[in-house]
Amino acid sequence: MKLYHCKNARSLRPLWALEELGIDYELVNMAFPPRASYPGYLTINPLGTVPTLTDGDLTLTESSGICQYLAETRQPNTLRVDPSEPAYGDYINWLFRSDATLTFPQTIVLRYSQLEPEARRIPQAVEDYSVWYLSRLRSVESALQDGREFLCADRFTMADITIHYALFLGRSLGLDARYKPNCLRYLDNLMARPAFQRAMTKQDIRSTPA
Amino acid sequence: MKLYHCKNARSLRPLWALEELGIDYELVNMAFPPRASYPGYLTINPLGTVPTLTDGDLTLTESSGICQYLAETRQPNTLRVDPSEPAYGDYINWLFRSDATLTFPQTIVLRYSQLEPEARRIPQAVEDYSVWYLSRLRSVESALQDGREFLCADRFTMADITIHYALFLGRSLGLDARYKPNCLRYLDNLMARPAFQRAMTKQDIRSTPA
Repeated sequence: MKLYHCKNARSLRPLWALEELGIDYELVNMAFPPRASYPGYLTINPLGTVPTLTDGDLTLTESSGICQYLAETRQPNTLRVDPSEPAYGDYINWLFRSDATLTFPQTIVLRYSQLEPEARRIPQAVEDYSVWYLSRLRSVESALQDGREFLCADRFTMADITIHYALFLGRSLGLDARYKPNCLRYLDNLMARPAFQRAMTKQDIRSTPA
Repeated sequence: MKLYHCKNARSLRPLWALEELGIDYELVNMAFPPRASYPGYLTINPLGTVPTLTDGDLTLTESSGICQYLAETRQPNTLRVDPSEPAYGDYINWLFRSDATLTFPQTIVLRYSQLEPEARRIPQAVEDYSVWYLSRLRSVESALQDGREFLCADRFTMADITIHYALFLGRSLGLDARYKPNCLRYLDNLMARPAFQRAMTKQDIRSTPA
């Protein structure tokens, strides 16, 4: 298994998941955007997006989807929630919410506040989608009330990895100044996990293009 | 089971899925946006987003997540792909790609071309995310080459429902003028499925708020 990653990009989700699962894998650290920095990347992933995970003949590109793929295909593990568990519906809902609802709006903020050249920046869209993201974050704040440590199933699951990453990305954009207490506590607590710390260390090791 | 739906919104995914599975459910058709049109909706779904599916004590709100939830909890059915099948990785990747990568950009197009008042419309963002969406659509075009009817597993699955809806939404925005032949063929062919047609008919029946 080989994971193509850019520092602090959405590929941090599967990187962290691999560390939690203790699976053997090869990590390829690339500069962003990889289509410019990593020769041959468009052959591996024609869309040029990050992450890419290859597993034998398979190629996966959706960060939260890779987490669910790993959870289901590398059993047994406690990170998956089985359809027979009462928390399964919540679990699936969090997994899908993580990217469509909580990460994507932030990519608009990032694009129009930092990535685009000055003349193409759009402060209105930056504020619109900051507000949009923070408004959807109420669901996380509420799920973590009464000192709850995890989102569902009373244990750490892939749902936590995928949602926590959205909070982590928000911090890099300065949006955490508007986070509520439960989200802030959760963001800090999960960053202390040994597997998250290992992922953070590994993403700083330079890879040489093959 | 109760599905809260707005015409042609993302809730069309679970509506279609329910029809394919032949499950009993109650449909609540609401005008968009439901926070304004349907009294009490924010009590059912505090985010006010569409869809909401309630199933006993559970509440789910992510359209593609609901499809996977139904597939897993209403077995047996041929719409799910089992982790033991070689196509499982592709299947999961399509499910997650459907919303984060193929629907969300269109919501930006819709917002800044139609939903916002004139003074807040942003033609640059409309064009940026039209291009962004169409570029990601290359993955669908390529998966359907050589006359392939379905995205993965050589059969109709939840992946088709979730991805097809993105194409369908694009048509309502006029983006289908820039679709390639395989996407156009797939869009039309799946709309002819009896379950899709039943979903289209049912969404036109008026519901009375409880």
